[in-house]
Amino acid sequence: MAILSALATEVLIPVAGVIGIAFAVVQWVLVSRVKLSPAAAAAGGSKNDYGDYLIEEEEGLNDHNVVVKCAEIQNAISEGATSFLFTEYQYVGIFMSIFAVVIFLFLGSVEGFSTKSQPCTYSVGKYCKPALFTALFSTASFLLGAITSLVSGFLGMKIATYANARTTLEARKGVGKAFITAFRSGAVMGFLLASSGLVVLYITINVFKLYYGDDWEGLFESITGYGLGGSSMALFGRVGGGIYTKAADVIADNVGDNVGDIAGMGSDLFGSYAESSCAALVVASISSFGINHDFTGMCYPLLVSSVGIIVCLITTLFATDFFEIKAVKEIEPALKKQLIISTALMTVGIAIISWLALPAKFTIFNFGTQKEVSNWGLFFCVAIGLWAGLIIGFVTEYYTSNAYSPVQDVADSCRTGAATNVIFGLALGYKSVIIPIFAIAVSIYVSFSIAAMYGIAVAALGMLSTIATGLAIDAYGPISDNAGGIAEMAGMSHRIRERTDALDAAGNTTAAIGKGFAIGSAALVSLALFGAFVSRAGVKVVDVLSPKVFIGLIVGAMLPYWFSAMTMKSVGSAALKMVEEVRRQFNTIPGLMEGTGKPDYATCVKISTDASIKEMIPPGALVMLTPLIVGTFFGVETLSGVLAGALVSGVQIAISASNTGGAWDNAKKYIEAGASEHARTLGPKGSDCHKAAVIGDTIGDPLKDTSGPSLNILIKLMAVESLVFAPFFATHGGLLFKYL
Amino acid sequence: MAILSALATEVLIPVAGVIGIAFAVVQWVLVSRVKLSPAAAAAGGSKNDYGDYLIEEEEGLNDHNVVVKCAEIQNAISEGATSFLFTEYQYVGIFMSIFAVVIFLFLGSVEGFSTKSQPCTYSVGKYCKPALFTALFSTASFLLGAITSLVSGFLGMKIATYANARTTLEARKGVGKAFITAFRSGAVMGFLLASSGLVVLYITINVFKLYYGDDWEGLFESITGYGLGGSSMALFGRVGGGIYTKAADVIADNVGDNVGDIAGMGSDLFGSYAESSCAALVVASISSFGINHDFTGMCYPLLVSSVGIIVCLITTLFATDFFEIKAVKEIEPALKKQLIISTALMTVGIAIISWLALPAKFTIFNFGTQKEVSNWGLFFCVAIGLWAGLIIGFVTEYYTSNAYSPVQDVADSCRTGAATNVIFGLALGYKSVIIPIFAIAVSIYVSFSIAAMYGIAVAALGMLSTIATGLAIDAYGPISDNAGGIAEMAGMSHRIRERTDALDAAGNTTAAIGKGFAIGSAALVSLALFGAFVSRAGVKVVDVLSPKVFIGLIVGAMLPYWFSAMTMKSVGSAALKMVEEVRRQFNTIPGLMEGTGKPDYATCVKISTDASIKEMIPPGALVMLTPLIVGTFFGVETLSGVLAGALVSGVQIAISASNTGGAWDNAKKYIEAGASEHARTLGPKGSDCHKAAVIGDTIGDPLKDTSGPSLNILIKLMAVESLVFAPFFATHGGLLFKYL
Repeated sequence: MAILSALATEVLIPVAGVIGIAFAVVQWVLVSRVKLSPAAAAAGGSKNDYGDYLIEEEEGLNDHNVVVKCAEIQNAISEGATSFLFTEYQYVGIFMSIFAVVIFLFLGSVEGFSTKSQPCTYSVGKYCKPALFTALFSTASFLLGAITSLVSGFLGMKIATYANARTTLEARKGVGKAFITAFRSGAVMGFLLASSGLVVLYITINVFKLYYGDDWEGLFESITGYGLGGSSMALFGRVGGGIYTKAADVIADNVGDNVGDIAGMGSDLFGSYAESSCAALVVASISSFGINHDFTGMCYPLLVSSVGIIVCLITTLFATDFFEIKAVKEIEPALKKQLIISTALMTVGIAIISWLALPAKFTIFNFGTQKEVSNWGLFFCVAIGLWAGLIIGFVTEYYTSNAYSPVQDVADSCRTGAATNVIFGLALGYKSVIIPIFAIAVSIYVSFSIAAMYGIAVAALGMLSTIATGLAIDAYGPISDNAGGIAEMAGMSHRIRERTDALDAAGNTTAAIGKGFAIGSAALVSLALFGAFVSRAGVKVVDVLSPKVFIGLIVGAMLPYWFSAMTMKSVGSAALKMVEEVRRQFNTIPGLMEGTGKPDYATCVKISTDASIKEMIPPGALVMLTPLIVGTFFGVETLSGVLAGALVSGVQIAISASNTGGAWDNAKKYIEAGASEHARTLGPKGSDCHKAAVIGDTIGDPLKDTSGPSLNILIKLMAVESLVFAPFFATHGGLLFKYL
Repeated sequence: MAILSALATEVLIPVAGVIGIAFAVVQWVLVSRVKLSPAAAAAGGSKNDYGDYLIEEEEGLNDHNVVVKCAEIQNAISEGATSFLFTEYQYVGIFMSIFAVVIFLFLGSVEGFSTKSQPCTYSVGKYCKPALFTALFSTASFLLGAITSLVSGFLGMKIATYANARTTLEARKGVGKAFITAFRSGAVMGFLLASSGLVVLYITINVFKLYYGDDWEGLFESITGYGLGGSSMALFGRVGGGIYTKAADVIADNVGDNVGDIAGMGSDLFGSYAESSCAALVVASISSFGINHDFTGMCYPLLVSSVGIIVCLITTLFATDFFEIKAVKEIEPALKKQLIISTALMTVGIAIISWLALPAKFTIFNFGTQKEVSNWGLFFCVAIGLWAGLIIGFVTEYYTSNAYSPVQDVADSCRTGAATNVIFGLALGYKSVIIPIFAIAVSIYVSFSIAAMYGIAVAALGMLSTIATGLAIDAYGPISDNAGGIAEMAGMSHRIRERTDALDAAGNTTAAIGKGFAIGSAALVSLALFGAFVSRAGVKVVDVLSPKVFIGLIVGAMLPYWFSAMTMKSVGSAALKMVEEVRRQFNTIPGLMEGTGKPDYATCVKISTDASIKEMIPPGALVMLTPLIVGTFFGVETLSGVLAGALVSGVQIAISASNTGGAWDNAKKYIEAGASEHARTLGPKGSDCHKAAVIGDTIGDPLKDTSGPSLNILIKLMAVESLVFAPFFATHGGLLFKYL
């Protein structure tokens, strides 16, 4: 047995969770020291602990009007975002309630709503709880996952809108202070999300155990609902937020970033985390951990996440306390160092926890057989996922940062117009897929060879184990972007704008890295969920040579295109409506053109909101209904094909779409910044080259903010949904082939 | 046994081939009646057989200078295209020679270059010819396929460059006459290609039979080299031609169309035809036809093609003789009618030949077992492929013709600039994938259920059975496009330009339909080849749950992106170089800007040629080497995954890329033509909307002319190459996994 006792595990996990939450609170308190009331602000400035060497040159610190204005703008942004999210949540709430009923009815029907215990599938000779109760618990964990995801997104938005104006104000004191404020705020979100995800999952398991007792098969089967809930919420958050963001670009850019990039991404990564944990748990429950009731081994996935929180905590200190940013050019390296430090420390962390929590040898369920695995083997699986994530992150950076030749080439192609810019950008996105796919393929092969589907699940978990740091970096971007927007609206000086721009430019690349992580981990998570689904559905072989599977494969590979067509068209139509409304206002509101009339903001916000709510339904329905329809009418074999097809095709489009978008954005910024000899030959702002670059950037927006990042939810969500409904499909599915 | 005797089959196939060739010659003679020498031209005009009602209004018939000028331009185009193709063929020739040696060495090594007969794999108790000789015959058929493909492309180009100026001159007499000239020329190419493909294959089989005798396994195994040769040539033709076309757009547009759209497409469809025949033959050879030596049954694929030639011949008469075009708006319906008529007639044709050539019951090899099939079942397989092709054709038309709302919406989106145009265009392409994929999926499911992989092979053959008509329609497009270009260069009147433009607009849509057919059939052909490969390699199951297969699947799905990145970037760079050269010439050649100096065409043509030759190597190598590397180092299981992944992912990108490109092209034409109230609000030429549309059109060029159509070759070629090398991989492959 493992060195770590079950009791120690029971203590360790919540302690790590609580430490994470406490750390988030501390960061929050530090951020809140920046005061948004004029008198206190001046005082706060001088009371600050940081040495003066950081302050390049203080600028306008005593201009109280600016502080008031920033506070006003912040309030408006926060209110706008809150009001949109409430509207969104109402609609999503209705959908979730209906879907909860569907889950209960479908899963309850597996044993005809019987309340009698049934023989277990994997623990031979034992009796497991009735399907009806597992249906009930699955529904409950589904709702719990959805609510946790919703709260994560909402809190993230609140933190971001709390931090943006504070970052602006700190920028008056220098780029270093502004960076720390933005990064700390990102950390609040990162730690809160990672810790609460862990704690809620931990509590749920313990509460469910009160009913399930020794029936761990049923227990962890019902827990998978948690992942489904998290991801369903994430889908609507990403799609709705993405459409809103882009439609609102014209009028309410700052609000959009907070609902799309912050709330949507928060829900998304929470979903990935919940799903990879669930995938690992469900496979573990039918492996020796579950069969021998080895609680510590069973909780290995949660322990890895717990270690992750501690590692990320230390890593964060490197950015905020151990070293400090002294110049603009140090920002990007500082963020990159975060990734490297967290990965290096985490490797040690995994080694320790693998040694403590795992028996030297154990067996893992492998499609009908049990495969022997050593604790060091499993360490290797987690580590390869972790390092593959780092590789994907760096490749993404290479292809989307304007410090390297790919983006510079794209910028250069603007010389001959928008068309070459688009062609080069698309080609860059396609090319950027190559190395990440090889990294994913190697991780899959190695981790599967070592520990079958469990290996893939923990590899995914390894990639996500530094999620707190990843999210902190990710959230830092939109916060800085917002800070820049506020500085502009508050009429702050050119120097302050330059500082926030510098923060923002680094944020763009890190946002792309964050998306790279999200997609890479989604690929592994989906595969793990797929494996868990196949195991639960009792499928032994998914043979491409069977026509049932092959048609699933080709149709599955088509789904990401269908989904992208919907989301991109939605963004386009919403933006079109908005542009027409703005033109209408210019024509009909007297004095608007001259700056004396007041624009009708309310109508614009309403257009964005209506468009995004209305347009998020069809793609959402496509993703949520496909597994249900395929499973019910075509059966588990075709569904396996669909999942595999959607996975292998979706990953490619997701990576290429977000990198293409990121590259265009930074190519434009490269020309605008004019930081090199080459860049200056292309600029300045307003030149033909720059105009071509702006067209690319606009095309990239729906790719990188809507289609791309939603696609990774598509592949995860279809897989986790199939997993939850697996018992139903296995007993009642495949109607069409049955009767044909 | 079948009603048709072996002797009747031996006679029927070459007779159909000869009839096809004769028909092509007749069409050629009819086209050549349009004289390109001034005196004869005037006489020819009056001697022409067609009634005067067709002639809207004769225009400039007696302007002898125009005729001389047209002849000059035609000569220049023909010389340019010939010179490029010769350069291309030199390089391809070297590559092909090396590859021929590789084939011989790899296949020869299967039994260690032994010259002793070996026990057959499928005909138990019999002896088959030594692998060394099969290697030799495979190499020979590879070279034969390459040469036939090369000749097909070259002849196509010659015909097209012969016809273009003649179409221009006929346009002086009216749109109907010009249409008939262009269409007849297309028919020359279509029939020549379909017939020569059939006849060469037929002769090869009969010659090889002299050596192989009763060993049909070896015979048809070596015949697969024919498909590989055809497709390898097609790959270079498509990629090289595609890059050349786009680079040359600036300076030598008319030459480009002839090498890319005509020669490239001719080689491509010839490749598809050769491959689907080979796939069907190789599966048949290990089914009851081969085992019982039923020659007529064995030749069923060739008989279907023979019937196809006759059916297409009748169909052509509907366009050229039974009905005649009287107005511009009749052109598109006339071309569409060609598709419907040929499909309807062919259905009857297949029914007859299935009844005559097939025994009532026979068995088909199905991955280790034999499956019983009826002749009507097989008829159904061919028919479903045929009709699926028609559906794909019509869906393509719907999404790319400016007569319907999708393209009109794209045109409308130009109001808000190039960015929305691009977003809408991409979304349109993604959406256009949905129905074709369902059509392909249904064909696969039904034909596989009826007759396993043989069913899929004959379904592909069904889709390609009306290839002569398809090619005629396809070739019609670039010929009309060229005719328009010549009219412009020869300084012909606005009215004549309007007529050639009308021909061209219809040609654009039909070109997209042709690509739709090519891609749809490529999907089926690849699957059939994949099935044949799996059978020959002795693989019984391709299990997605095996990590070896899964990594193949995900890497395979990535290959089309890698390939597209290369080809698109190539087109972009080549165009960039060209634009810079043109700018340089304007700056350095005195009087060029004012029209008094002469541009340095030779340098421009050299840039295009060099760029396309140099740039076609890396993507070509990627496609040709991938199966070799994967098969040799990772083995047949991973290779199966790669093929399946490339297939399901490549089909989607290919369809969406060519439809997006087609839609942008026609959205631009829609605005230019201004034929409706809506279109006029967007135009005229030179308006902001039109400029946005031009950007879309330029982006679409590499998508629809280079990446898209090359992708279907990628998936076919990798499959046929795997099939040819299957015996080698099965015995010597998978080195890496063997020694790890």
